[in-house]
Amino acid sequence: SRYEYVKKFELPDPLLLGTFLVLRIDGHAFHKLSEAHDFTKPNDERALQLMDHAARNVMNEFNDICLAFGESDEYSFLFRKSTTLYNRRQSKIITTVTSLFTSSYVYNWSKYLPDKELMYPPSFDGRIVMYPSPKEIRDYFAWRQADTHINNLYNTVFWALVLQGDESTTQAHATLRGTVSSTKHEMLHSRFSINYNSLPARFRKGSVLVREQVMPEKAVLLAPAAEGAASTPDVEGQGIPQPSTRKPPKKPKAQYTVELLHCDIIGDEFWDQRPYLLAE
Amino acid sequence: SRYEYVKKFELPDPLLLGTFLVLRIDGHAFHKLSEAHDFTKPNDERALQLMDHAARNVMNEFNDICLAFGESDEYSFLFRKSTTLYNRRQSKIITTVTSLFTSSYVYNWSKYLPDKELMYPPSFDGRIVMYPSPKEIRDYFAWRQADTHINNLYNTVFWALVLQGDESTTQAHATLRGTVSSTKHEMLHSRFSINYNSLPARFRKGSVLVREQVMPEKAVLLAPAAEGAASTPDVEGQGIPQPSTRKPPKKPKAQYTVELLHCDIIGDEFWDQRPYLLAE
Amino acid sequence: SRYEYVKKFELPDPLLLGTFLVLRIDGHAFHKLSEAHDFTKPNDERALQLMDHAARNVMNEFNDICLAFGESDEYSFLFRKSTTLYNRRQSKIITTVTSLFTSSYVYNWSKYLPDKELMYPPSFDGRIVMYPSPKEIRDYFAWRQADTHINNLYNTVFWALVLQGDESTTQAHATLRGTVSSTKHEMLHSRFSINYNSLPARFRKGSVLVREQVMPEKAVLLAPAAEGAASTPDVEGQGIPQPSTRKPPKKPKAQYTVELLHCDIIGDEFWDQRPYLLAE
Amino acid sequence: SRYEYVKKFELPDPLLLGTFLVLRIDGHAFHKLSEAHDFTKPNDERALQLMDHAARNVMNEFNDICLAFGESDEYSFLFRKSTTLYNRRQSKIITTVTSLFTSSYVYNWSKYLPDKELMYPPSFDGRIVMYPSPKEIRDYFAWRQADTHINNLYNTVFWALVLQGDESTTQAHATLRGTVSSTKHEMLHSRFSINYNSLPARFRKGSVLVREQVMPEKAVLLAPAAEGAASTPDVEGQGIPQPSTRKPPKKPKAQYTVELLHCDIIGDEFWDQRPYLLAE
Ligand SMILES: Nc1nc2c(ncn2[C@H]2C[C@H](O)[C@@H](COP(=O)(O)OP(=O)(O)OP(=O)(O)O)O2)c(=O)[nH]1
Ligand SMILES: Nc1nc2c(ncn2[C@H]2C[C@H](O)[C@@H](COP(=O)(O)OP(=O)(O)OP(=O)(O)O)O2)c(=O)[nH]1
Ligand SMILES: Nc1nc2c(ncn2[C@H]2C[C@H](O)[C@@H](COP(=O)(O)OP(=O)(O)OP(=O)(O)O)O2)c(=O)[nH]1
Ligand SMILES: Nc1nc2c(ncn2[C@H]2C[C@H](O)[C@@H](COP(=O)(O)OP(=O)(O)OP(=O)(O)O)O2)c(=O)[nH]1
Ligand SMILES: O=P(O)(O)OP(=O)(O)OP(=O)(O)O
Ligand SMILES: O=P(O)(O)OP(=O)(O)OP(=O)(O)O
Ligand SMILES: O=P(O)(O)OP(=O)(O)OP(=O)(O)O
Ligand SMILES: O=P(O)(O)OP(=O)(O)OP(=O)(O)O
Ligand SMILES: [Mg+2]
Ligand SMILES: [Mg+2]
Ligand SMILES: [Mg+2]
Ligand SMILES: [Mg+2]
Ligand SMILES: [Mg+2]
Ligand SMILES: [Mg+2]
Ligand SMILES: [Mg+2]
Ligand SMILES: [Mg+2]
Ligand SMILES: [Mg+2]
Ligand SMILES: [Mg+2]
Ligand SMILES: [Mg+2]
Ligand SMILES: [Mg+2]
Repeated sequence: SRYEYVKKFELPDPLLLGTFLVLRIDGHAFHKLSEAHDFTKPNDERALQLMDHAARNVMNEFNDICLAFGESDEYSFLFRKSTTLYNRRQSKIITTVTSLFTSSYVYNWSKYLPDKELMYPPSFDGRIVMYPSPKEIRDYFAWRQADTHINNLYNTVFWALVLQGDESTTQAHATLRGTVSSTKHEMLHSRFSINYNSLPARFRKGSVLVREQVMPEKAVLLAPAAEGAASTPDVEGQGIPQPSTRKPPKKPKAQYTVELLHCDIIGDEFWDQRPYLLAE
Repeated sequence: SRYEYVKKFELPDPLLLGTFLVLRIDGHAFHKLSEAHDFTKPNDERALQLMDHAARNVMNEFNDICLAFGESDEYSFLFRKSTTLYNRRQSKIITTVTSLFTSSYVYNWSKYLPDKELMYPPSFDGRIVMYPSPKEIRDYFAWRQADTHINNLYNTVFWALVLQGDESTTQAHATLRGTVSSTKHEMLHSRFSINYNSLPARFRKGSVLVREQVMPEKAVLLAPAAEGAASTPDVEGQGIPQPSTRKPPKKPKAQYTVELLHCDIIGDEFWDQRPYLLAE
Repeated sequence: SRYEYVKKFELPDPLLLGTFLVLRIDGHAFHKLSEAHDFTKPNDERALQLMDHAARNVMNEFNDICLAFGESDEYSFLFRKSTTLYNRRQSKIITTVTSLFTSSYVYNWSKYLPDKELMYPPSFDGRIVMYPSPKEIRDYFAWRQADTHINNLYNTVFWALVLQGDESTTQAHATLRGTVSSTKHEMLHSRFSINYNSLPARFRKGSVLVREQVMPEKAVLLAPAAEGAASTPDVEGQGIPQPSTRKPPKKPKAQYTVELLHCDIIGDEFWDQRPYLLAE
Repeated sequence: SRYEYVKKFELPDPLLLGTFLVLRIDGHAFHKLSEAHDFTKPNDERALQLMDHAARNVMNEFNDICLAFGESDEYSFLFRKSTTLYNRRQSKIITTVTSLFTSSYVYNWSKYLPDKELMYPPSFDGRIVMYPSPKEIRDYFAWRQADTHINNLYNTVFWALVLQGDESTTQAHATLRGTVSSTKHEMLHSRFSINYNSLPARFRKGSVLVREQVMPEKAVLLAPAAEGAASTPDVEGQGIPQPSTRKPPKKPKAQYTVELLHCDIIGDEFWDQRPYLLAE
């Protein structure tokens, strides 16, 4: 048609080959959303499990995602270096993944917060960053988990001061200003007899979703669809002749499941046990 | 922290100043979704109204969107040329808008398809294209509405042949191969006594959402929040000190509503009546 | 070959369609170059003519450049909006044009500074900026010519103070600090009896190179190659099957020459006389 | 000024951190230039030495370039992974380096082709490609040197057939069509008694410029400026407070020279002897 020329104004946006891709989504105005829906402070187990569920949905849909890490209202997804998903088109990847995460969050809300009606449609932003070397991936996830620790220690003491220590939020901020980590631990212990390290790992470490290969015999017992995800027809692949389908042809034997862990990913142990994460 | 350097790998992605921005979202694998949820063929009024509702939500949230056009599983949003939304950051705009559209689609599904449970979380892709001149915006929306007409005429005859003419889908495709528009009209009229032009405008013209200024006296009657959108706290603005908030400070007097129309936007009339759309 | 895959790491870099392109080059460390080669202060007619010659070479080579403006060690080139030079590839355009300008500068040095041997190879940077609307092109060239005026007025008084007024450069800067334009004119007039407006237009207005259509009968007299450029085989076209050759197929009749002017390009007159500059 | 806003249309173009940068320049229309200036076929030692001289000039000016490889009318420059030259701004780097190469080519022409006046200003294009891993750098330079071998073997037999074998260029192309490498070697040997491997290494291997650290005692003898480059004030640094000067502060002790070699860079030996090339 005589109007079709407008399609030529679309600019190509392929991401550089040979780089790891990290896609991070973050809830829009979740401070307000958490207030409006009375999220438990500082951590609402239901809300964090809902975030994990949405992230699991994303990992089930996109096989090239080998690891995900979530805390608070954010989730980071690591794509293997040689992914050819959507020909590595930046806009197509970030919108489709952010949209699926959002959809799953709203779709599964009532499963995790059955007694709290969702008052309005929440939304998330998404961005993708290219990292050339494995070291930068190690440091990226260390950056996020260190952030989890610092925020959670601060928030735990803050809300203890407010909810149990009768301080106003302003006073609590003042009490905490300039304190070092050990002082915070001291405060929790002496004033609220809380041993920080015995708090749930989920709050201290955040959520790690990792695609683990399942040993053949164990695979037999497992249903093909990884547990935890809504039995979604999407799991059987899209049938849409994409240049590179979301499901690269699975090798016959290998079976994978997505494991949820609340463990340290700053040290070497986690990564040394899973060399494939930073391999190709 | 020693890991913070990874943040510097994020590349700036501002969109060129002085260009109109058109953001188009499109449902992922909606052929499958429409089959799985028995959408009426070729057009499912409920599903199309749900698309309009999600688009209206987006327009209520982002005041710089002055026009939207939707058909099938896609919606296009026109941002005014001088928008400074998120400092015109490409990733931030396309993910947040696509995410909000998706969220509203899932959030409002049951309102429009009460007797059809949503079987899995749907998702959408999003992209943004810069257009330097008003003429290209006229031709962009003409391109989309012309596409609506051609697809709808084809689909209307196709499903008439299949559902009323007892043709298989393969036969129907064969019957239609190479036919010109007039032959299709002829077929509809002679074999199925359907007068194409009397079919609902929504199916023939698609949906146009346009922000119209409301005359002062009429404004008095209207609730501040544009009707049709979930009474969303987000309407009262975000309270987040964005470089440019999603709600540029509204001039005191002017009140706007978002009107849903099913009219021609290829000819000059629609645009001549609304010069502000292509102005600044 | 097994190594060819490295070619795929080259990212596409097309410039948005429908935008005017302005390419600006600027001499690297010309403060040092002008000192090392004893350029007359503040303006060295020979050096400025050499800049014009290099710019003319560029305009002879690239027919899609319709206007150029030069001052000091910089030159700006305006490409017509619909150019398809090198498929509008950003890197290919800026390097080839900057390289040709540099080459011509060195190649023609001795023609303009015969008694001053070029001591080392000079270099230039180049950049290209997209402008969606004609107004921005008017303001771009006004920005550059206003810059010429302000710098030249300052430099003229500065060097008068230093060379005729026996002030040190530090004193001269102090004398000029905070002075307004009229004070500078006053100083020139009263202390050095220089009437700024009677100084050569080239110094006050900079250099304007514009492609003017030559009336048919006048065309007959003119040699095909525009005067001023080295009789360069390149004028006869490249013979290189580029997707869009540097010389779009010339219409038979129209003949163009590149005129050098030292006139105002901030006001409307220059542009109103040449509507084609901002047309297509 | 009221026009300054146009500066904001310049888009940022930083190259991704942590990637090796390879900048390749290539002569524009050098087929024509070589004909017009009667370059010896297939290789003109003078012209190739001029290319090396220009490349050496570039390496003297930019300390972050650790390796360069040239053949025919092209040169590739490898920047160390952690360079912060011009804040890794893509346009600034490619134009300035391509411009300096061009300038040096024209500036030094007469030194290498004293009896052949340069007829017009030549130009070069430039581009920069990001490579995330050392392996890709090995393969990039292997790609270029393999290209040198294949072209030079073909050109050597081709011009032998034409200049000594009385074949027309068309016949020579026909003779060579479909021949494998060994047949070409056979032809050279039997019909022209040329032993390909005894031809000058420069023609077979191209030119390698590598920055080698000079042992302290040897350093004492050497003039600070690397020999071969015009004694250019530029060697003493720019004195321009760039965010990152072209001359990162040299560690007191280490002295470097730029060595010209015509050796294999496809095998491991060259690289194993110089681990710093692919290190940080
Ligand atoms: N009470 C509670 N609040 C949470 C929980 N998870 C997240 N939040 C809230 C706390 C933070 O205010 C907010 C996340 O921090 P952000 O920096 O992302 O702030 P927010 O999303 O409001 O702003 P943004 O739109 O991302 O710039 O979400 C939770 O489990 N419980
Ligand atoms: N029956 C029915 N189908 C619809 C309706 N709206 C959209 N669809 C279906 C028809 C098309 O197969 C599909 C939209 O065309 P697309 O080119 O976007 O295909 P699809 O979304 O499957 O692929 P994609 O992931 O976008 O590449 O959605 C509707 O109102 N009723
Ligand atoms: N004496 C004299 N100096 C000139 C003439 N044309 C240009 N220059 C000098 C004056 C300025 O210091 C310099 C141009 O200003 P720039 O801001 O481009 O400085 P420069 O090139 O040194 O630094 P750059 O590498 O561009 O950042 O060139 C001339 O005709 N006569
Ligand atoms: N006789 C001779 N020719 C040479 C020599 N070095 C380069 N050339 C010529 C041979 C090739 O035709 C040309 C280099 O090949 P290119 O693919 O770069 O062709 P050209 O520069 O003409 O086209 P381009 O503007 O780069 O697309 O330069 C030399 O030493 N002797
Ligand atoms: O999300 P971050 O970490 O980049 O920091 P921010 O302040 O939320 O900024 P934005 O989300 O707008 O990039
Ligand atoms: O959506 P379009 O119109 O760009 O065309 P497509 O074939 O769906 O391609 P994609 O959605 O992947 O750009
Ligand atoms: O040349 P400008 O005007 O962009 O300003 P600058 O200070 O010279 O900066 P650069 O040349 O590095 O962009
Ligand atoms: O130079 P190359 O190898 O990219 O190949 P080309 O055919 O010369 O193309 P261009 O120089 O225009 O990229
Ligand atoms: Mg953020
Ligand atoms: Mg948030
Ligand atoms: Mg957050
Ligand atoms: Mg599509
Ligand atoms: Mg679709
Ligand atoms: Mg569609
Ligand atoms: Mg500059
Ligand atoms: Mg300069
Ligand atoms: Mg300058
Ligand atoms: Mg080329
Ligand atoms: Mg070439
Ligand atoms: Mg070449």
